[in-house]
Amino acid sequence: MKLENIKIVMVGTTHPGNIGAAARAMFNMELGRLCLVDPQCPVGEIAYARASGANAVLDNRETWPDLKRAVADCHHVFATSARRRSLAWPESSPRELAAGIHNLGDDAQVALVFGREHSGLSNEEIQLCNRMVVIPTNPGFSSLNVAAAIQLLCYEIYATWAEPVAADKVEPQDMPASSAEIEGYFEHLQQVLEATGFLDPQQPGLIMQRLRRLYLRSEPSRNEINILRGMLSAIQKPRGG
Amino acid sequence: MKLENIKIVMVGTTHPGNIGAAARAMFNMELGRLCLVDPQCPVGEIAYARASGANAVLDNRETWPDLKRAVADCHHVFATSARRRSLAWPESSPRELAAGIHNLGDDAQVALVFGREHSGLSNEEIQLCNRMVVIPTNPGFSSLNVAAAIQLLCYEIYATWAEPVAADKVEPQDMPASSAEIEGYFEHLQQVLEATGFLDPQQPGLIMQRLRRLYLRSEPSRNEINILRGMLSAIQKPRGG
Repeated sequence: MKLENIKIVMVGTTHPGNIGAAARAMFNMELGRLCLVDPQCPVGEIAYARASGANAVLDNRETWPDLKRAVADCHHVFATSARRRSLAWPESSPRELAAGIHNLGDDAQVALVFGREHSGLSNEEIQLCNRMVVIPTNPGFSSLNVAAAIQLLCYEIYATWAEPVAADKVEPQDMPASSAEIEGYFEHLQQVLEATGFLDPQQPGLIMQRLRRLYLRSEPSRNEINILRGMLSAIQKPRGG
Repeated sequence: MKLENIKIVMVGTTHPGNIGAAARAMFNMELGRLCLVDPQCPVGEIAYARASGANAVLDNRETWPDLKRAVADCHHVFATSARRRSLAWPESSPRELAAGIHNLGDDAQVALVFGREHSGLSNEEIQLCNRMVVIPTNPGFSSLNVAAAIQLLCYEIYATWAEPVAADKVEPQDMPASSAEIEGYFEHLQQVLEATGFLDPQQPGLIMQRLRRLYLRSEPSRNEINILRGMLSAIQKPRGG
């Protein structure tokens, strides 16, 4: 699957801010193909302001008079809608959508279709689509902003596409300390705590166990162990009255 | 985990439209607790228009002068940021965040912290947080709108919450310490380290940052913080010859 083969299709949008916000949301997730169907507003200053630098997405937009022509070259067309229909359509979650798109071949053309701010998509428009994508929402307040819905689906696709996640890069000083280095710290810590009277040398048990659990859980780096041991050495130094 | 125990914290927001859009995004995902830290704009007509009916979230918002006080009662504090820092902080993906939150006990209080539109969070603010949540984005255009970032994280939490999974049981003594309890420990630690000469009181900076990272990463329990403070008190006690 190639990200550049995915179109975001906005049908009958009435607010230019939503078009700009959609462009920004798309470009944040490396999607660049915006397609407007029968837009009800100009794409001008307001849209560009909200695009916040994703101007290329707006500049390169396509505009079509109806959805049928807009998606004519697409192999996989997904509608989003919060409203349930009298005619049930096959449904996917956003994650299932992302996984499905991820497994498509490199030639597959995909469209994600988003409806009008107030009335969504018509039944006729939904019936141009292969599936519905249903975003899980509060049943008492389910109407997402259209740019927010675009943000969510683009994110799901991008997050899936970006996996497998590269392993964290570890700077040399952030290399985890070896077990021997950590044990050296625990011995040093126990000495200091016995000297201060905090630990009973006959019964260090439970407290030391709890301290071990705390420090081992954080998987200290070599550098952090050096700092911790530096602290202990400073504490051990006799203080001039 | 209870959704009502999650606060969305917006720091230094300058645009009221973003506050309104955040309220809508939250309520779409059944989250209701909005917390503003040092907001740089009024929450009026523009915010309510963008909230699009999620008025209750705006009406019930909390406002705080700084982040430290805003998260004082929280056990798990997550920062979001696109900028990488000189001092790397432990990182999670949004999905890892959602899974982690889902496994928390019913008493856990959680804060998700979002920074300023133009400058994000300060290093000092990040150092109040246990982890960073990094949303995967286009490396060439990574700056998400703040309400879009809130939408994504609320969605991940809600989508995970909507799936049934058994939660880990947490024993009372293993409840995570609150942010205020952990800050109390750091202040105590700094005092002791300055007294021993390990820290230069004029320059506690980098060492304290590294120690904060180490301890915050392990999400200490209340009991562990008590042990650590007991150690510090024992070290402070004058030793008889």
